Amino acid sequence: MTAGLDFENWTCPVPLRDHPAIVMGHGGGGAMSAELVEHLFLPGYGAAGAGELGDCAVVEAGGVRLAFSTDSFVVRPMFFPGGSIGDLAVNGTVNDLAMSGATPLYLSAAFILQEGTALADIGRIAAAMGAAASAAGVRLVTGDTKVVDRRSGDGVYVNTAGVGMLAPGVDIAPRRATAGDAVLVSGDLGVHGVAVLSCREGVEFGTGVSSDTAPLHGLVAAMLATGADVHVLRDPTRGGVAASLNEIARAAGVGVELGERDLPVPPAVADACSLLGLDPLQVANEGKLLAFVPPDSADAVLDAMRAHPLGAGARRIGTCVPDHPGMVVARTALGGTRVVTMPIGEQLPRIC
Amino acid sequence: MTAGLDFENWTCPVPLRDHPAIVMGHGGGGAMSAELVEHLFLPGYGAAGAGELGDCAVVEAGGVRLAFSTDSFVVRPMFFPGGSIGDLAVNGTVNDLAMSGATPLYLSAAFILQEGTALADIGRIAAAMGAAASAAGVRLVTGDTKVVDRRSGDGVYVNTAGVGMLAPGVDIAPRRATAGDAVLVSGDLGVHGVAVLSCREGVEFGTGVSSDTAPLHGLVAAMLATGADVHVLRDPTRGGVAASLNEIARAAGVGVELGERDLPVPPAVADACSLLGLDPLQVANEGKLLAFVPPDSADAVLDAMRAHPLGAGARRIGTCVPDHPGMVVARTALGGTRVVTMPIGEQLPRIC
Repeated sequence: MTAGLDFENWTCPVPLRDHPAIVMGHGGGGAMSAELVEHLFLPGYGAAGAGELGDCAVVEAGGVRLAFSTDSFVVRPMFFPGGSIGDLAVNGTVNDLAMSGATPLYLSAAFILQEGTALADIGRIAAAMGAAASAAGVRLVTGDTKVVDRRSGDGVYVNTAGVGMLAPGVDIAPRRATAGDAVLVSGDLGVHGVAVLSCREGVEFGTGVSSDTAPLHGLVAAMLATGADVHVLRDPTRGGVAASLNEIARAAGVGVELGERDLPVPPAVADACSLLGLDPLQVANEGKLLAFVPPDSADAVLDAMRAHPLGAGARRIGTCVPDHPGMVVARTALGGTRVVTMPIGEQLPRIC
Repeated sequence: MTAGLDFENWTCPVPLRDHPAIVMGHGGGGAMSAELVEHLFLPGYGAAGAGELGDCAVVEAGGVRLAFSTDSFVVRPMFFPGGSIGDLAVNGTVNDLAMSGATPLYLSAAFILQEGTALADIGRIAAAMGAAASAAGVRLVTGDTKVVDRRSGDGVYVNTAGVGMLAPGVDIAPRRATAGDAVLVSGDLGVHGVAVLSCREGVEFGTGVSSDTAPLHGLVAAMLATGADVHVLRDPTRGGVAASLNEIARAAGVGVELGERDLPVPPAVADACSLLGLDPLQVANEGKLLAFVPPDSADAVLDAMRAHPLGAGARRIGTCVPDHPGMVVARTALGGTRVVTMPIGEQLPRIC
C-alpha cells in the first residue's frame, strides 16, 4: 500500500544549518521545533538536560512520582471565540500533565506584560485563569510579573508550569505505542485553530466556530477507570494531529494508519481549511486528545469517553501498524494512501 | 528614634487606579508590582489563587512537601559581565527554591524567541543554562519554545519553573521574622545591577563589576547544618534589599533596623550609584541572600556562611525590632535615622 513512497532516510527538509536565525516556523511544533530541541537545546544543556525535553516530564521526589510541565502562550488575539489566552494557559498545562496520566494539582503563572497594556485586559485574563483553574480543580500557587517596553512585547505573554501526581503503575508515554493499538480521538478536529484564525482575520466560516479549549484530566480519569492499559495519550495542539501522530510513531518505532473518512472534521473547519489551503490534520486543537489503546480495550475506552461531556464525539480513527515505522499514512476515500507528514514549520503562527 | 516620621496608614503612592495601563514600574518588584498582585491577580484568580502568590510556594503531594517556583527573565543585554540571561534563569529559580529551605531538583525551561534572533545566541544561552544547572545539581527536564514576530519580541525571553523538596520540619518564611532576630547578608550588595547597567550604557565603574549570579542552595544547606532555627531567607533581586526587607517586615508585622555603616556596598557600586542617583539598597543582586536568625544563633550561622565560598563576605547588617511594624529604618553614619522605603517602581528596568 505504501509502494512508491520513499519512507527511508527521512530528514528535516529545513535543517538548522539553513537558518542562522529564528524564523516563525521554529515555533510551530513541527519538524523545525524538533530540530531546535534536538540540535540546539539538548546539546546546550549537556549532562543537565534530561530525557527528550518533552511536553511533560515524569520525575520523582521523596518516593512520589510527579508530572512536571511548562508552556508559554503568545496567542493573538488574546481574546477569541470560546476563550482567551488565560483559558489556554491553564487548560494547556493541565492537559500536558493529564496526558501523562497524572492528576494536575498546582500551577504557576508568570506574565511578561508590554508597557501600555490595559489593566482591564490583564484583569480579564486573570479572571479567565481563575475560572479555568477552579473548573480544573487546580490551584494557582506562585507567580511572577515582568514588564517590557512598548517595542519589545505584544500585550500579554503567559507562562504556566504545572505539577501533578501519578498513581503507582501508571505509565503512559509515546514509546509505548504498539502495533495493533487502536488510535482514538475524543472529538471534532481543528476547531481551536479555525476559531482563532477567523477572529484574527475578521472572517467567519459557516455558523461560526468557537475554540474547544477545555481541561481533559477528567476525561482521562474516566478512560483509566475502565482498567484499560492505555499506552499513549496526547493532546494535538500546535502542529495538530499530524505532528502528534508523527512524534508518537517515531518515538515508538511504529507506523500509524488513519482512515481519512473516519476523521471527525466538522464542515465549518473543512470549509475554512479548503478556502485557506490548510490541512485540518495540522490545525491546532486545545480540548481534544488522541489515545493509543490495545485493540481489545478499544470499545470499553470509547464507551467511557462517549459517556463524558468532553468525549461525546469520540471515535476510532486508525490503527498502529508494524509497517513503515516512524510514519503516518492515511487511506483516502478513493482507496489510495497518502503520507501524513510531520508539519515543517508554522501554518498558523501564534495559535496558542 | 523614629519620631517625626508618619509610619501609620502607609499606602502605595502610585495606586492602580491612577494607571489604566501597564507602565515599566509594574515590573520593578516594588510597591507597584505588589499592587498588581494584590488588586488584580489575586481578585482575578478568586478561589483558585492560593496564598500570596509569592516567589516560591510550599505545597504537598502524596505526603511530600514540595517547593514550586517560577520566574521569567527579560534582562537586556542578554549577555553581560559575569553571566547571561541563561545563568540568571537557572540560578534565579534555584535560589527562589532555596530561600524556602528546599533542595532544588528539577527545572523547566520555556523560551519566547523573537523572529530573527541568531541561533548562535540561543545556543550560547542554552549552554549557559546547562552549565549553571550542572553546577547547581538540578536537571532541565521539560520545555517549550514559542516564536513571535520581529515587532513583538526582543531576542530571547526565558521562563524557568522549579520543583524542590523540603526536609521535614523546615519552615522558613517571611512571616517568621521575630523581634530580636539578627539580620544577616551573605556579601557585597548591588553588584548585579551595576554590572548590567554598566554594560548596557557602555560605561565602566571603577575596576569593572561582574554580576554575582550564583546558586545559593549550598550556602543555605551550610547555614541549616548549624542546627539554627533560621526564620527567613530571601534573595534580594529586583528592588534590592529595600524591597525584600520591607516585604518581610510587612509579612511578619515587625520592624527592621539597619546600621547604614554595616552595609557592604563595594566602592565601585557606591560610585556608580552616586553618579547615577541610585540607592544601592534598591539595586538588584543575583547571588546574595538575607537571613533572619535568632540572636543566639547569629554567630554560628555567620561562621558557617563565611566558611562557604558564596558567603565569605557575610556580615550582620541589622536587627528585627518590635517598633514601627512593617517599616525598615537605617541608622545613618551621623547618628540619625532614615526610612528605607519600599521602592515604588523601577530604578533599572529589565535587570533580570
